[in-house]
Amino acid sequence: MTEPTRDLLETFENPYPGRDYLIETVCPEFTSVCPKTGQPDFGTLTITYIADQVCFELKSLKLYLQQYRNHGAFYEQVTNRILDDLVAVVQPRMMEIRAEFTPRGGIRTNVVVTYPDEVWGEEE
Amino acid sequence: MTEPTRDLLETFENPYPGRDYLIETVCPEFTSVCPKTGQPDFGTLTITYIADQVCFELKSLKLYLQQYRNHGAFYEQVTNRILDDLVAVVQPRMMEIRAEFTPRGGIRTNVVVTYPDEVWGEEE
Amino acid sequence: MTEPTRDLLETFENPYPGRDYLIETVCPEFTSVCPKTGQPDFGTLTITYIADQVCFELKSLKLYLQQYRNHGAFYEQVTNRILDDLVAVVQPRMMEIRAEFTPRGGIRTNVVVTYPDEVWGEEE
Amino acid sequence: MTEPTRDLLETFENPYPGRDYLIETVCPEFTSVCPKTGQPDFGTLTITYIADQVCFELKSLKLYLQQYRNHGAFYEQVTNRILDDLVAVVQPRMMEIRAEFTPRGGIRTNVVVTYPDEVWGEEE
Amino acid sequence: MTEPTRDLLETFENPYPGRDYLIETVCPEFTSVCPKTGQPDFGTLTITYIADQVCFELKSLKLYLQQYRNHGAFYEQVTNRILDDLVAVVQPRMMEIRAEFTPRGGIRTNVVVTYPDEVWGEEE
Amino acid sequence: MTEPTRDLLETFENPYPGRDYLIETVCPEFTSVCPKTGQPDFGTLTITYIADQVCFELKSLKLYLQQYRNHGAFYEQVTNRILDDLVAVVQPRMMEIRAEFTPRGGIRTNVVVTYPDEVWGEEE
Amino acid sequence: MTEPTRDLLETFENPYPGRDYLIETVCPEFTSVCPKTGQPDFGTLTITYIADQVCFELKSLKLYLQQYRNHGAFYEQVTNRILDDLVAVVQPRMMEIRAEFTPRGGIRTNVVVTYPDEVWGEEE
Amino acid sequence: MTEPTRDLLETFENPYPGRDYLIETVCPEFTSVCPKTGQPDFGTLTITYIADQVCFELKSLKLYLQQYRNHGAFYEQVTNRILDDLVAVVQPRMMEIRAEFTPRGGIRTNVVVTYPDEVWGEEE
Amino acid sequence: MTEPTRDLLETFENPYPGRDYLIETVCPEFTSVCPKTGQPDFGTLTITYIADQVCFELKSLKLYLQQYRNHGAFYEQVTNRILDDLVAVVQPRMMEIRAEFTPRGGIRTNVVVTYPDEVWGEEE
Amino acid sequence: MTEPTRDLLETFENPYPGRDYLIETVCPEFTSVCPKTGQPDFGTLTITYIADQVCFELKSLKLYLQQYRNHGAFYEQVTNRILDDLVAVVQPRMMEIRAEFTPRGGIRTNVVVTYPDEVWGEEE
Repeated sequence: MTEPTRDLLETFENPYPGRDYLIETVCPEFTSVCPKTGQPDFGTLTITYIADQVCFELKSLKLYLQQYRNHGAFYEQVTNRILDDLVAVVQPRMMEIRAEFTPRGGIRTNVVVTYPDEVWGEEE
Repeated sequence: MTEPTRDLLETFENPYPGRDYLIETVCPEFTSVCPKTGQPDFGTLTITYIADQVCFELKSLKLYLQQYRNHGAFYEQVTNRILDDLVAVVQPRMMEIRAEFTPRGGIRTNVVVTYPDEVWGEEE
Repeated sequence: MTEPTRDLLETFENPYPGRDYLIETVCPEFTSVCPKTGQPDFGTLTITYIADQVCFELKSLKLYLQQYRNHGAFYEQVTNRILDDLVAVVQPRMMEIRAEFTPRGGIRTNVVVTYPDEVWGEEE
Repeated sequence: MTEPTRDLLETFENPYPGRDYLIETVCPEFTSVCPKTGQPDFGTLTITYIADQVCFELKSLKLYLQQYRNHGAFYEQVTNRILDDLVAVVQPRMMEIRAEFTPRGGIRTNVVVTYPDEVWGEEE
Repeated sequence: MTEPTRDLLETFENPYPGRDYLIETVCPEFTSVCPKTGQPDFGTLTITYIADQVCFELKSLKLYLQQYRNHGAFYEQVTNRILDDLVAVVQPRMMEIRAEFTPRGGIRTNVVVTYPDEVWGEEE
Repeated sequence: MTEPTRDLLETFENPYPGRDYLIETVCPEFTSVCPKTGQPDFGTLTITYIADQVCFELKSLKLYLQQYRNHGAFYEQVTNRILDDLVAVVQPRMMEIRAEFTPRGGIRTNVVVTYPDEVWGEEE
Repeated sequence: MTEPTRDLLETFENPYPGRDYLIETVCPEFTSVCPKTGQPDFGTLTITYIADQVCFELKSLKLYLQQYRNHGAFYEQVTNRILDDLVAVVQPRMMEIRAEFTPRGGIRTNVVVTYPDEVWGEEE
Repeated sequence: MTEPTRDLLETFENPYPGRDYLIETVCPEFTSVCPKTGQPDFGTLTITYIADQVCFELKSLKLYLQQYRNHGAFYEQVTNRILDDLVAVVQPRMMEIRAEFTPRGGIRTNVVVTYPDEVWGEEE
Repeated sequence: MTEPTRDLLETFENPYPGRDYLIETVCPEFTSVCPKTGQPDFGTLTITYIADQVCFELKSLKLYLQQYRNHGAFYEQVTNRILDDLVAVVQPRMMEIRAEFTPRGGIRTNVVVTYPDEVWGEEE
Repeated sequence: MTEPTRDLLETFENPYPGRDYLIETVCPEFTSVCPKTGQPDFGTLTITYIADQVCFELKSLKLYLQQYRNHGAFYEQVTNRILDDLVAVVQPRMMEIRAEFTPRGGIRTNVVVTYPDEVWGEEE
């Protein structure tokens, strides 16, 4: 199985680059595979961003995310990686991804990543 | 098909211009046409503003929005354009439009635009 | 039909004037008449305030609001006017009224007024 | 009928006095009697506090609140008084009580009191 | 019955230590035993943290929490203790635990603890 | 104040008299006046029927129901009377009215009337 | 403390005795005292009936139910007894009472009684 | 504007004609135009059927329903007509359409049509 | 670990044996242990019955169910066994137990058992 | 890609074959691939059955359903096929599968299949 690639992501020109406005995209059909157990994982990704010069195109986002369908990925890793890919391609003014995964073993996990970093609590 | 025009928007005098107060108008029956596929799109617009000298009249807002019924428009564009039209006619102290569109291909998108700009994250 | 009057509002002494505390009163049975169409309007008023020397008495508030039952009033006007009447009689440290009206023509409107003014966005 | 007394409230030593942490206690079965009409009132009390040296014991809180079952009390008075009693016995770093009463005459009322006072809006 | 031990908690390397991001883990199947009555208690723990060098491993968290199944513990104590154990093992940049327990005697209690301390209201 | 009259009800020809089908009309803005206390009552009427030769026209139904706005009426009486009026004018194959009134004194009441009578339990 | 008596229940003439129709009355503020522990119990009573010659008057129902406020009563007993009292006074064509009590010790109980008996399963 | 035609509806062979099973299709994006006011109407259609030899194809259903977008149609008429068209093309063993329209003038209407007729109450 | 025993179940005399009425008891805090994995399972039991000569006492039911806390039991087995135990002790006219277990591996299971048997579909 | 096979389904002996009881299994993480577009589909399967000699084992059900993850299948076909496979392996007294798929193109579809056939409406 090949590695997911950000090359599938397409963009279009931001129609209002002079204004800071929010675009919120909710993808409730994200699925990947647990690298440890080989079992499928399911989650909802909510991507919120302020575009700069370009916006991501929704159909290409869907195809990009479908690459993870049979790809092994831990929750923390995959959420951070999708942020890195989207930031690299879209170069937004800000972007947040909130990923909410379905329960495993009676426990469920959400991961929230932000670009640029909002520093929370103590600095390292 | 003619282009939607802000000329349909009518206003009435703000009965309390001396006070900053919020007016929130929710329009769950917005529909336009996707310019790429020709398929109809559906959404809910929530318009929140502080009037200055005038308020928009609700019936004229409804007729203004109905112009988009058979008009091709991308989500980001149409939301920004409606903000521009309402700001031009009403000249509010502030206005926000939150547009929530129904899912397409398992993905749904919201767009939030504000006047005047709230600068979020890094400046350009 | 006579004009609604604040004379119906009665007060009682604030039992704890030394403490700033919130009183929140929800009135889901507000109804008035649209001055343009003569059709009844319905709404929920939520009144939140910090009393100073007096609180309003609930039964008198009900009778005061019932004066609007057959009275013509636009949403923006009636919400501001009720705030003016309550502020005049109760002289609270702060008061907010949130009025949520039922939909008309597929569109619904809320009005939020505050005393003293919270200045939002640009000053005039 | 005897007056409710704070003497019923018992405390236990705060197991972590070195840390500021929140304790939130929800009592949906509060009932008292309207001093004007003699009719029973019902409400939900939510008590949130940061303990200092002691915490209140839950069973004694229940018995303390049951003293109001046949006791006449206005909403604003009873909420403030319970705060005074709990603060006197527990001497917390902060405490808030939110009391939500069931509707009477189509109108419902909530009262929110805080210790120490958060000053809201203009000072007198 | 042996005392619960933090030795069961395992960690893995934080895959993105250069970024401050939130991990939120919800455990709705927490149960312990009331030390006074011997009756079982039930609750939901929500653990939110920003990892530094390591993250906790979910299966080991489950086993760690199951140690409380037949262990006597008061609400305030057990929540603080779990925070101490997780902080000791994970050394996060920040961590919050919100514990919501099911009702006893018509009253229910939540406890919210944070590391490092957010100081709330007056200092001691 | 004049008595409500069924003369305001208008009908239109049932477009499919050859088929038994259900029409369900929900009117959440019904209001009348309690004949005992003079206080307004509020309720939601749900009218379900199978038309025979005619259907009722919605705007005329609204005007018919608005006649009760300042009219004294007990719950049981008004629900039965509206059924009588609608049956007289529409002559449906069957009709049910479910009226759900808002609470008074902590108690709320619904009335369900049916034409023709479904006999329930013992006959008289 | 005196025993609750059905003498407080008042009736009014059924305005439509020729029609079998349902009256549904919901009383969410029922409270009594557990005869074993002396602790208060809380519940919601839903009374559904078809009146014959008379209906019960709502204010008298409220006063009748308030007699249980300081009266010791087990769930099964009190629900059956209220049915007996209401049937004796109203002599309805049918009546059902559904009582839903708040949880005690993590367990909650509902009782449903019907007049005349619907025989369920095996006969005695 | 041309009349909607059932010619757009396409079918595919029922893969299990030997079994009676239910297919339920929910279309929340139905819109037509009120023939009286020219204003758009919105509704949700729920189509439930047991296929015989063929099932309807979903994309063709969508295109068929989009023909009503700018077509004048009363609620009762359009629901019956869509049933007639679907029955003619699919020839199902049974079919029900439930149409739920958004409120107009504070009143909302649902229409439920069934093939073959379930006779309800009195025969004509 | 000893086997759970029905000896802990206590009963009290049915106060209205002459009437068939329903008692519904909801126990949301049931927990047992999976005999295969040793992991705890959680569920909600809803017990509905018509008592004959005796009712079960709630506190003894709680103690009876707590015997399963550290007991290995499959879903189907444990639900049937609890029905057997309750039927043996209470000898009800009818009883149903609905057990709803929390999800495991993304799949959740409910079991519904009835006494006496409702024969469903084909007889054996 | 190999065809899904019922060979993965494992069973265990029904612990109470002498009693007709319901087992309800909900699988919210079903996913397959649309054979026309190659796009993934998502759905929730609810399987309800009365076991005869054997029950299906949950882990094997999960593995059986995961075979559809990259398998092309129409909604109607896949639901019927899963019923056939489960009936063949488990030979239940009755079984129903309700499959609810997520929306595509603004339309969502459910399929309900039953064994043995409930004949609905006209016979073929």
